[in-house]
Amino acid sequence: MYHLVVRQFAFTLRNLENIMGKAQAYAATRKFDVNNFCTMRLFPDMLPFMAQIRIACDHAKNAAAFLSGQEPPKHEDNETTFEDLRGRIAKCLAFLDSISAQDFARTTSETVIKLPRPPGKGLRADDYLLSRHMPNFYFHVTTAYALLRSGGVDVGKSDFLGQLNLVDA
Amino acid sequence: MYHLVVRQFAFTLRNLENIMGKAQAYAATRKFDVNNFCTMRLFPDMLPFMAQIRIACDHAKNAAAFLSGQEPPKHEDNETTFEDLRGRIAKCLAFLDSISAQDFARTTSETVIKLPRPPGKGLRADDYLLSRHMPNFYFHVTTAYALLRSGGVDVGKSDFLGQLNLVDA
Repeated sequence: MYHLVVRQFAFTLRNLENIMGKAQAYAATRKFDVNNFCTMRLFPDMLPFMAQIRIACDHAKNAAAFLSGQEPPKHEDNETTFEDLRGRIAKCLAFLDSISAQDFARTTSETVIKLPRPPGKGLRADDYLLSRHMPNFYFHVTTAYALLRSGGVDVGKSDFLGQLNLVDA
Repeated sequence: MYHLVVRQFAFTLRNLENIMGKAQAYAATRKFDVNNFCTMRLFPDMLPFMAQIRIACDHAKNAAAFLSGQEPPKHEDNETTFEDLRGRIAKCLAFLDSISAQDFARTTSETVIKLPRPPGKGLRADDYLLSRHMPNFYFHVTTAYALLRSGGVDVGKSDFLGQLNLVDA
Protein backbone atom coordinates (compact mmCIF):
# COMPACT_ATOMS: atom_id res chain seq x y z
CA MET A 1 0.00 0.00 0.00
CA TYR A 2 2.75 2.48 0.94
CA HIS A 3 4.31 2.47 -2.50
CA LEU A 4 0.94 2.66 -4.27
CA VAL A 5 -0.10 5.71 -2.27
CA VAL A 6 3.27 7.41 -2.76
CA ARG A 7 3.00 6.79 -6.52
CA GLN A 8 -0.46 8.36 -6.44
CA PHE A 9 1.01 11.41 -4.65
CA ALA A 10 3.53 11.72 -7.50
CA PHE A 11 0.78 11.34 -10.07
CA THR A 12 -1.27 14.08 -8.37
CA LEU A 13 1.76 16.40 -8.23
CA ARG A 14 2.21 15.93 -11.99
CA ASN A 15 -1.44 16.92 -12.45
CA LEU A 16 -0.76 19.97 -10.30
CA GLU A 17 2.19 20.86 -12.55
CA ASN A 18 -0.17 20.77 -15.55
CA ILE A 19 -2.67 22.96 -13.73
CA MET A 20 0.09 25.45 -12.91
CA GLY A 21 1.06 25.44 -16.59
CA LYS A 22 -2.51 26.39 -17.46
CA ALA A 23 -2.37 29.18 -14.86
CA GLN A 24 0.77 30.53 -16.55
CA ALA A 25 -0.91 30.46 -19.97
CA TYR A 26 -3.99 32.17 -18.53
CA ALA A 27 -1.92 34.91 -16.90
CA ALA A 28 -0.11 35.49 -20.20
CA THR A 29 -3.43 35.80 -22.07
CA ARG A 30 -4.93 38.13 -19.46
CA LYS A 31 -1.60 40.01 -19.30
CA PHE A 32 -0.99 39.82 -15.56
CA ASP A 33 2.00 38.51 -13.62
CA VAL A 34 1.38 34.85 -12.72
CA ASN A 35 3.50 35.39 -9.59
CA ASN A 36 0.57 37.37 -8.20
CA PHE A 37 -0.95 33.97 -7.36
CA CYS A 38 1.93 33.16 -5.01
CA THR A 39 0.66 35.34 -2.18
CA MET A 40 -3.07 34.79 -2.73
CA ARG A 41 -5.14 33.35 0.12
CA LEU A 42 -8.76 32.15 0.32
CA PHE A 43 -9.16 34.03 3.62
CA PRO A 44 -6.83 36.49 5.35
CA ASP A 45 -5.63 34.07 8.04
CA MET A 46 -5.15 31.11 5.71
CA LEU A 47 -1.77 30.24 4.22
CA PRO A 48 -0.99 31.61 0.73
CA PHE A 49 -0.65 29.61 -2.48
CA MET A 50 3.12 29.41 -2.03
CA ALA A 51 2.77 27.63 1.33
CA GLN A 52 0.08 25.28 0.00
CA ILE A 53 2.52 23.99 -2.63
CA ARG A 54 5.43 23.66 -0.20
CA ILE A 55 3.39 21.81 2.41
CA ALA A 56 1.79 19.47 -0.14
CA CYS A 57 5.27 18.56 -1.38
CA ASP A 58 6.59 18.04 2.14
CA HIS A 59 3.79 15.67 3.08
CA ALA A 60 4.48 13.54 -0.01
CA LYS A 61 8.24 13.67 0.59
CA ASN A 62 8.09 12.87 4.30
CA ALA A 63 5.61 10.01 3.88
CA ALA A 64 7.80 8.49 1.17
CA ALA A 65 10.98 8.94 3.19
CA PHE A 66 9.96 7.82 6.66
CA LEU A 67 7.87 4.88 5.42
CA SER A 68 10.87 3.66 3.45
CA GLY A 69 13.25 4.14 6.39
CA GLN A 70 15.11 7.13 4.97
CA GLU A 71 15.75 10.69 6.06
CA PRO A 72 13.91 13.02 3.67
CA PRO A 73 16.05 15.38 1.59
CA LYS A 74 15.91 18.94 2.90
CA HIS A 75 14.14 21.34 0.53
CA GLU A 76 14.50 24.95 1.68
CA ASP A 77 11.38 27.14 1.73
CA ASN A 78 13.05 29.83 -0.36
CA GLU A 79 10.81 30.03 -3.42
CA THR A 80 9.62 33.47 -4.46
CA THR A 81 8.11 32.84 -7.90
CA PHE A 82 5.65 30.52 -9.60
CA GLU A 83 8.56 29.02 -11.56
CA ASP A 84 10.44 28.40 -8.28
CA LEU A 85 7.40 26.52 -6.99
CA ARG A 86 7.40 24.35 -10.09
CA GLY A 87 11.04 23.64 -9.28
CA ARG A 88 10.05 22.63 -5.75
CA ILE A 89 7.52 20.16 -7.17
CA ALA A 90 10.12 18.82 -9.60
CA LYS A 91 12.61 18.22 -6.74
CA CYS A 92 9.92 16.43 -4.77
CA LEU A 93 9.00 14.29 -7.79
CA ALA A 94 12.65 13.36 -8.37
CA PHE A 95 12.80 12.07 -4.79
CA LEU A 96 9.47 10.21 -5.01
CA ASP A 97 10.50 8.60 -8.30
CA SER A 98 13.76 7.40 -6.73
CA ILE A 99 11.88 5.13 -4.31
CA SER A 100 10.82 1.65 -5.36
CA ALA A 101 8.28 -0.78 -3.89
CA GLN A 102 11.25 -2.72 -2.44
CA ASP A 103 12.23 0.25 -0.28
CA PHE A 104 9.06 -0.16 1.77
CA ALA A 105 9.66 -3.87 2.40
CA ARG A 106 10.82 -3.47 5.99
CA THR A 107 7.84 -1.35 7.05
CA THR A 108 4.81 -3.19 8.44
CA SER A 109 1.54 -1.92 9.88
CA GLU A 110 3.14 -2.29 13.34
CA THR A 111 6.13 -0.08 12.53
CA VAL A 112 5.96 3.10 14.63
CA ILE A 113 7.15 6.32 13.01
CA LYS A 114 8.25 9.11 15.33
CA LEU A 115 6.60 12.51 14.85
CA PRO A 116 8.46 15.82 15.11
CA ARG A 117 5.86 16.76 17.75
CA PRO A 118 4.49 16.14 20.31
CA PRO A 119 7.79 14.86 21.78
CA GLY A 120 7.98 11.13 22.43
CA LYS A 121 5.00 10.37 20.23
CA GLY A 122 4.52 8.67 16.88
CA LEU A 123 2.02 6.87 14.69
CA ARG A 124 1.78 3.32 13.41
CA ALA A 125 2.70 3.20 9.72
CA ASP A 126 -0.86 2.84 8.40
CA ASP A 127 -2.10 5.74 10.52
CA TYR A 128 0.98 7.73 9.62
CA LEU A 129 0.12 7.45 5.95
CA LEU A 130 -3.69 7.40 5.97
CA SER A 131 -4.62 9.72 8.82
CA ARG A 132 -1.70 12.16 8.67
CA HIS A 133 0.01 12.47 5.29
CA MET A 134 -2.77 11.49 2.91
CA PRO A 135 -5.41 13.97 4.13
CA ASN A 136 -2.78 16.70 4.56
CA PHE A 137 -1.46 16.14 1.04
CA TYR A 138 -4.87 16.37 -0.62
CA PHE A 139 -5.90 19.25 1.63
CA HIS A 140 -3.02 21.41 0.39
CA VAL A 141 -3.18 20.36 -3.28
CA THR A 142 -6.93 21.03 -3.34
CA THR A 143 -6.48 24.41 -1.66
CA ALA A 144 -3.80 25.34 -4.23
CA TYR A 145 -6.20 24.26 -6.99
CA ALA A 146 -9.03 26.27 -5.39
CA LEU A 147 -6.86 29.39 -5.32
CA LEU A 148 -6.05 29.14 -9.04
CA ARG A 149 -9.63 28.16 -9.87
CA SER A 150 -11.10 31.05 -7.90
CA GLY A 151 -8.60 33.31 -9.68
CA GLY A 152 -10.30 32.37 -12.94
CA VAL A 153 -7.95 29.69 -14.32
CA ASP A 154 -10.04 27.47 -16.59
CA VAL A 155 -9.38 24.08 -15.02
CA GLY A 156 -11.74 21.39 -13.80
CA LYS A 157 -11.67 18.31 -11.65
CA SER A 158 -10.42 16.20 -14.55
CA ASP A 159 -7.20 18.25 -14.47
CA PHE A 160 -6.88 17.48 -10.77
CA LEU A 161 -7.56 13.76 -11.26
CA GLY A 162 -5.48 13.31 -14.41
CA GLN A 163 -5.78 10.44 -16.87
CA LEU A 164 -7.12 7.29 -15.22
CA ASN A 165 -5.75 3.83 -16.13
CA LEU A 166 -8.97 2.60 -17.77
CA VAL A 167 -9.25 -1.06 -18.68
CA ASP A 168 -11.99 -2.99 -20.49
CA ALA A 169 -14.80 -4.06 -18.16
CA MET B 1 -5.92 -1.51 2.32
CA TYR B 2 -9.50 -1.10 1.10
CA HIS B 3 -11.01 -1.31 4.55
CA LEU B 4 -8.37 0.97 6.08
CA VAL B 5 -9.01 3.68 3.50
CA VAL B 6 -12.79 3.37 3.84
CA ARG B 7 -12.44 3.69 7.62
CA GLN B 8 -10.37 6.82 7.06
CA PHE B 9 -13.13 8.22 4.82
CA ALA B 10 -15.59 7.65 7.69
CA PHE B 11 -13.19 9.28 10.14
CA THR B 12 -12.85 12.33 7.86
CA LEU B 13 -16.63 12.60 7.45
CA ARG B 14 -16.96 12.67 11.25
CA ASN B 15 -14.44 15.51 11.32
CA LEU B 16 -16.55 17.26 8.68
CA GLU B 17 -19.62 16.84 10.90
CA ASN B 18 -17.75 18.57 13.73
CA ILE B 19 -16.72 21.38 11.39
CA MET B 20 -20.34 21.80 10.28
CA GLY B 21 -21.37 21.96 13.95
CA LYS B 22 -18.89 24.80 14.42
CA ALA B 23 -20.37 26.55 11.37
CA GLN B 24 -23.84 26.29 12.95
CA ALA B 25 -22.58 27.76 16.24
CA TYR B 26 -20.82 30.55 14.34
CA ALA B 27 -23.95 31.40 12.34
CA ALA B 28 -25.98 31.52 15.57
CA THR B 29 -23.44 33.89 17.17
CA ARG B 30 -23.29 36.12 14.11
CA LYS B 31 -27.09 35.88 13.76
CA PHE B 32 -27.29 34.68 10.17
CA ASP B 33 -29.00 31.66 8.66
CA VAL B 34 -26.46 28.81 8.42
CA ASN B 35 -28.34 27.54 5.36
CA ASN B 36 -26.86 30.48 3.48
CA PHE B 37 -23.73 28.34 3.20
CA CYS B 38 -25.59 25.68 1.18
CA THR B 39 -25.53 27.64 -2.06
CA MET B 40 -22.12 29.29 -1.61
CA ARG B 41 -19.45 28.69 -4.26
CA LEU B 42 -15.76 29.61 -4.42
CA PHE B 43 -16.25 30.75 -8.02
CA PRO B 44 -19.44 31.22 -10.05
CA ASP B 45 -19.01 28.08 -12.18
CA MET B 46 -17.95 25.81 -9.32
CA LEU B 47 -20.41 23.56 -7.52
CA PRO B 48 -21.98 24.91 -4.32
CA PHE B 49 -21.39 23.68 -0.78
CA MET B 50 -24.43 21.40 -0.98
CA ALA B 51 -22.99 19.51 -3.95
CA GLN B 52 -19.54 19.27 -2.36
CA ILE B 53 -21.04 17.38 0.59
CA ARG B 54 -23.18 15.10 -1.58
CA ILE B 55 -20.33 14.19 -3.90
CA ALA B 56 -17.86 13.60 -1.05
CA CYS B 57 -20.38 11.21 0.53
CA ASP B 58 -21.02 9.42 -2.76
CA HIS B 59 -17.34 8.79 -3.40
CA ALA B 60 -16.94 7.24 0.06
CA LYS B 61 -20.15 5.22 -0.33
CA ASN B 62 -19.39 3.95 -3.84
CA ALA B 63 -15.80 3.01 -3.03
CA ALA B 64 -16.97 1.08 0.04
CA ALA B 65 -19.78 -0.63 -1.87
CA PHE B 66 -18.12 -1.64 -5.12
CA LEU B 67 -14.86 -2.71 -3.47
CA SER B 68 -16.85 -4.97 -1.14
CA GLY B 69 -18.94 -6.38 -4.01
CA GLN B 70 -22.19 -4.65 -3.06
CA GLU B 71 -24.59 -2.29 -4.75
CA PRO B 72 -24.40 1.06 -2.92
CA PRO B 73 -27.57 2.24 -1.20
CA LYS B 74 -29.29 5.02 -3.16
CA HIS B 75 -29.23 8.38 -1.37
CA GLU B 76 -31.41 10.94 -3.15
CA ASP B 77 -29.98 14.40 -3.79
CA ASN B 78 -32.93 16.12 -2.14
CA GLU B 79 -31.32 18.05 0.69
CA THR B 80 -32.20 21.71 1.01
CA THR B 81 -30.79 22.64 4.42
CA PHE B 82 -27.57 22.36 6.38
CA GLU B 83 -29.30 19.94 8.75
CA ASP B 84 -30.38 17.80 5.75
CA LEU B 85 -26.75 17.66 4.66
CA ARG B 86 -25.73 16.44 8.10
CA GLY B 87 -28.39 13.75 7.65
CA ARG B 88 -26.81 12.80 4.32
CA ILE B 89 -23.44 12.40 6.02
CA ALA B 90 -25.05 10.34 8.81
CA LYS B 91 -26.66 7.97 6.25
CA CYS B 92 -23.33 7.60 4.48
CA LEU B 93 -21.57 6.87 7.79
CA ALA B 94 -24.18 4.26 8.74
CA PHE B 95 -23.41 2.45 5.48
CA LEU B 96 -19.63 2.75 5.86
CA ASP B 97 -19.83 1.49 9.44
CA SER B 98 -21.84 -1.54 8.30
CA ILE B 99 -18.90 -2.85 6.26
CA SER B 100 -16.20 -4.95 7.88
CA ALA B 101 -12.69 -5.85 6.74
CA GLN B 102 -14.06 -9.30 5.85
CA ASP B 103 -16.36 -7.80 3.23
CA PHE B 104 -13.36 -6.81 1.10
CA ALA B 105 -11.84 -10.30 1.22
CA ARG B 106 -12.83 -11.26 -2.32
CA THR B 107 -11.39 -8.12 -3.91
CA THR B 108 -7.79 -8.27 -5.10
CA SER B 109 -5.65 -5.73 -6.90
CA GLU B 110 -6.58 -7.55 -10.15
CA THR B 111 -10.35 -7.17 -9.61
CA VAL B 112 -11.79 -4.84 -12.26
CA ILE B 113 -14.61 -2.54 -11.21
CA LYS B 114 -16.90 -1.26 -13.95
CA LEU B 115 -17.36 2.51 -14.19
CA PRO B 116 -20.68 4.21 -14.94
CA ARG B 117 -18.86 5.90 -17.85
CA PRO B 118 -17.23 5.64 -20.31
CA PRO B 119 -19.24 2.54 -21.34
CA GLY B 120 -17.37 -0.75 -21.29
CA LYS B 121 -14.56 0.62 -19.16
CA GLY B 122 -13.45 0.08 -15.60
CA LEU B 123 -10.50 0.35 -13.24
CA ARG B 124 -8.46 -2.22 -11.35
CA ALA B 125 -9.38 -2.13 -7.66
CA ASP B 126 -6.26 -0.26 -6.49
CA ASP B 127 -6.64 2.40 -9.17
CA TYR B 128 -10.37 2.56 -8.49
CA LEU B 129 -9.68 3.46 -4.88
CA LEU B 130 -6.45 5.45 -5.09
CA SER B 131 -6.74 7.35 -8.38
CA ARG B 132 -10.52 7.83 -8.52
CA HIS B 133 -12.32 7.78 -5.17
CA MET B 134 -9.57 8.91 -2.80
CA PRO B 135 -8.62 12.13 -4.62
CA ASN B 136 -12.27 12.89 -5.40
CA PHE B 137 -13.28 12.38 -1.77
CA TYR B 138 -10.62 14.71 -0.38
CA PHE B 139 -11.18 17.21 -3.17
CA HIS B 140 -14.82 17.68 -2.19
CA VAL B 141 -14.33 17.57 1.58
CA THR B 142 -11.53 20.15 1.32
CA THR B 143 -13.63 22.37 -0.93
CA ALA B 144 -16.53 22.18 1.56
CA TYR B 145 -14.08 23.09 4.34
CA ALA B 146 -12.69 25.97 2.24
CA LEU B 147 -16.20 27.36 1.72
CA LEU B 148 -16.93 27.42 5.46
CA ARG B 149 -13.45 28.68 6.25
CA SER B 150 -13.66 31.47 3.72
CA GLY B 151 -17.07 32.34 5.19
CA GLY B 152 -15.31 33.08 8.48
CA VAL B 153 -15.92 29.86 10.45
CA ASP B 154 -13.10 29.58 12.97
CA VAL B 155 -11.74 26.14 12.09
CA GLY B 156 -8.25 24.96 11.27
CA LYS B 157 -6.54 22.00 9.72
CA SER B 158 -6.62 20.12 13.04
CA ASP B 159 -10.42 20.07 12.75
CA PHE B 160 -10.08 18.58 9.27
CA LEU B 161 -7.54 15.98 10.41
CA GLY B 162 -9.20 15.08 13.71
CA GLN B 163 -7.56 13.35 16.63
CA LEU B 164 -4.65 11.15 15.53
CA ASN B 165 -4.00 7.74 17.14
CA LEU B 166 -0.72 8.76 18.79
CA VAL B 167 1.43 6.05 20.34
CA ASP B 168 4.66 6.26 22.34
CA ALA B 169 7.74 6.46 20.11
